[in-house]
Amino acid sequence: MYINRPASYTDYYELTMAQGYFDANKHHQSAVFDYFFRSNPFNGGYVIFSGLNDLLDALHNFRFSDDEINYLRSEGFNDDFLNYMRDFSFKGTIHSVKEGEIVFPNEPIARVEGTLLETQIIETLLLNILNFQSLIATKASRIKLAAGKDCTVLDFGLRRSQGLGGIHASRSAIIGGFDGTSNVYAAQEFNLPAGGTMAHSWIQAFDDELTAFRAYAKSFPDSTILLVDTYDTLNSGVPNAIKVARELREKGHELVGIRLDSGDLAYFSRKSRKMLDDAGFPDVKIAASNQLDERVITSLKRQEAAIDIFGVGTRLVTGDSSPALDGVYKLASVDNTPKIKISENVEKITLPGQKIVKRYFNDDGTFYGDAIMAEDENSIEKIYHPIYTAKTSKLTGKSSTLFLKKMMENGEFIEPKSTVKESAEYCRNQLSKLPQEYKRYENPHIYKVGISKKLLDMRNEIIQNHQNHI
Amino acid sequence: MYINRPASYTDYYELTMAQGYFDANKHHQSAVFDYFFRSNPFNGGYVIFSGLNDLLDALHNFRFSDDEINYLRSEGFNDDFLNYMRDFSFKGTIHSVKEGEIVFPNEPIARVEGTLLETQIIETLLLNILNFQSLIATKASRIKLAAGKDCTVLDFGLRRSQGLGGIHASRSAIIGGFDGTSNVYAAQEFNLPAGGTMAHSWIQAFDDELTAFRAYAKSFPDSTILLVDTYDTLNSGVPNAIKVARELREKGHELVGIRLDSGDLAYFSRKSRKMLDDAGFPDVKIAASNQLDERVITSLKRQEAAIDIFGVGTRLVTGDSSPALDGVYKLASVDNTPKIKISENVEKITLPGQKIVKRYFNDDGTFYGDAIMAEDENSIEKIYHPIYTAKTSKLTGKSSTLFLKKMMENGEFIEPKSTVKESAEYCRNQLSKLPQEYKRYENPHIYKVGISKKLLDMRNEIIQNHQNHI
Repeated sequence: MYINRPASYTDYYELTMAQGYFDANKHHQSAVFDYFFRSNPFNGGYVIFSGLNDLLDALHNFRFSDDEINYLRSEGFNDDFLNYMRDFSFKGTIHSVKEGEIVFPNEPIARVEGTLLETQIIETLLLNILNFQSLIATKASRIKLAAGKDCTVLDFGLRRSQGLGGIHASRSAIIGGFDGTSNVYAAQEFNLPAGGTMAHSWIQAFDDELTAFRAYAKSFPDSTILLVDTYDTLNSGVPNAIKVARELREKGHELVGIRLDSGDLAYFSRKSRKMLDDAGFPDVKIAASNQLDERVITSLKRQEAAIDIFGVGTRLVTGDSSPALDGVYKLASVDNTPKIKISENVEKITLPGQKIVKRYFNDDGTFYGDAIMAEDENSIEKIYHPIYTAKTSKLTGKSSTLFLKKMMENGEFIEPKSTVKESAEYCRNQLSKLPQEYKRYENPHIYKVGISKKLLDMRNEIIQNHQNHI
Repeated sequence: MYINRPASYTDYYELTMAQGYFDANKHHQSAVFDYFFRSNPFNGGYVIFSGLNDLLDALHNFRFSDDEINYLRSEGFNDDFLNYMRDFSFKGTIHSVKEGEIVFPNEPIARVEGTLLETQIIETLLLNILNFQSLIATKASRIKLAAGKDCTVLDFGLRRSQGLGGIHASRSAIIGGFDGTSNVYAAQEFNLPAGGTMAHSWIQAFDDELTAFRAYAKSFPDSTILLVDTYDTLNSGVPNAIKVARELREKGHELVGIRLDSGDLAYFSRKSRKMLDDAGFPDVKIAASNQLDERVITSLKRQEAAIDIFGVGTRLVTGDSSPALDGVYKLASVDNTPKIKISENVEKITLPGQKIVKRYFNDDGTFYGDAIMAEDENSIEKIYHPIYTAKTSKLTGKSSTLFLKKMMENGEFIEPKSTVKESAEYCRNQLSKLPQEYKRYENPHIYKVGISKKLLDMRNEIIQNHQNHI
């Protein structure tokens, strides 16, 4: 379960609005909300969608307990409303993309339909889950791309993750392309590959480094990775590791690896590699950690660092300098009337009405661009840039697929939830269809997301009506 | 309870080390670990310590369930070790500063004593809790300092907080000086002041803005704050709010406030203030939100923005560009033998042995500096910079207090845990003793944290011994 009290894991104003809708007898009106984000994190070119399973799970368990009702009563919410909420459960319908899908700014990536009350009250919960998990899956995919297929990337972030956010950071890291995690809780919960060996304290706890290495190898003869930088990497750590590797081999085992956690990782890894190779241990892996991210790893690869396994912590699980995806959840229609938010900031004007999204492909099967259109549109000839509407792109002759699939209907799951492994596989497959220019770290190409003529006209008409009204 | 399975909320290597210590029959040896961080986040001058209650709570509930034991068996941990862990509980002793204390880089702010196994196995859990909660309390205190005593600061961050990290972000925001939160879960859990009114969707859900305002005011006549920027702030939002304020007053109520969430907040707040004042509503408050932090608020104040309430979200609850405190947990002694980590990075060399910390005061009662010394030292004359040891500071004639207090003994709480309100009060009081130069945002003065001569000599001797050994 995502959280023990999902209904309370919300902004207070969702509840005042719920009571207000109830008092105004509007709570049963139908409504549609869209989830989308406005800009790619990390100055990147794409986002990996993640968090759907936890969202659906939380919505399926969305109930107010007696404790919660009593708390809300003490806060002044009224009895009629609270009696209604006591029996409330989420019966809405959700269309969204799959976990592991590649998504872009300004396109609806989840659509929630139901009563005004039920679609509104889940806003904060939905945003909290999808914003964070998508952020970390995206960061993970960037780091994995830097490390390359032949290198292993492991999540070491739990100690620096944002409190209990660590649970789902590790889950999303695997969806985004990580090979394993140090997070035991998440590994058990989500069936993730987990591992880890020793900290510096292990070495320090023994009288000397060699004794510490031997003790570990004795306990774990087939899975030992020795941390070699506690006292002196090249003069003590690596030579002692080679001694232990020889002792293991004499007993029919092989040392799995060594780990570097400080100093110049490019230099130390090359030196260590040579020492290991010269000693007859070319298969002993070299793991490295210490403030890694996609940029540091790219630099290490360029320097021909001899690193097989990258352990990535803080900068993965927090999103580093982009610690939040700016996803929002905006009302698109009430009682089948399209709605819009105008805003003082032009780029914050929303798209009205119930919409669909289609993804168009190049001839080689790679992604070309995405089109947002009105629900009753089917085939359109071109798309308009959502803000600079003079800019258009032709879609003629391109194949396409519908982007949003029904994932929950009337509060019930539509199909078995995908496992983390399946989502990771899907993500890997989709990334292979994303052209290289959207993946680079510096000034990635901007992926085309446009709107149909009909949607553009509808938006302009509603804005005009509002301006006339004022 | 902090988490349902605290013992599993850990890095895998804590468990391999635990088994290793058990296999080597070292698990019962006594050990001491220090918790400290190496640099202030946000390029700031201090950190507010937070998270102790949740840590103590998690340690008190630290047990491996059958499910967890079975999972570890499936991962290959051995039966003797797992039988031992089945009955394991944390019986260690913890000294630390209080929640809300002001702390600085490189000084021990918590010390854990117990067996080698029990002190090691809690590392990740401790770091996860203390690093994050201290980070957010620190960010909150910076934002509150910018807003000033006369303005209210509210946490609106849940939708952008890092997954379940949102629970404790809101708790820590209050400790650091925030006045309230939108987070209903945290408010109920930790008895925090909570509030909130309406989103843009509320306005959009009605036929027009005035109808929406009236409906809200009808449901909440004494606590209405109207969001005025959905269509046009000055031409529609504020005039409609004034209409509703008049209607409320006729019925014996007063409009509490209006909220701005887009556009130029300085300009719109001044214009709105004038319109409200001119209409006879000088007591209607103006709330503002939209990507605020301590720097934006400082700028708004300098522009004489007429804002009474700041709603701060993303940049509070994620720590923005410094999303992690770099706290570490380092072994200081085993079996009463002082231990050290040397490291390839000089600033990562640790301080050996069981230590105490004293805080020294200026004559006016403000903080002067902190001294780290060996456990058996009492009064020292001067402190040495921990890295540039030629730099010293005199302590003669200054009053001092012991910094670390016993908070848990043999796994049991020593005294009633402080409430969030008490910790917030303590924090406010301590901040009044921190000279201004450590609080500024640009190049804050570096607070003195030094070590005693005895500790310095001990460290040098151990380093020398290791180098001789190699």
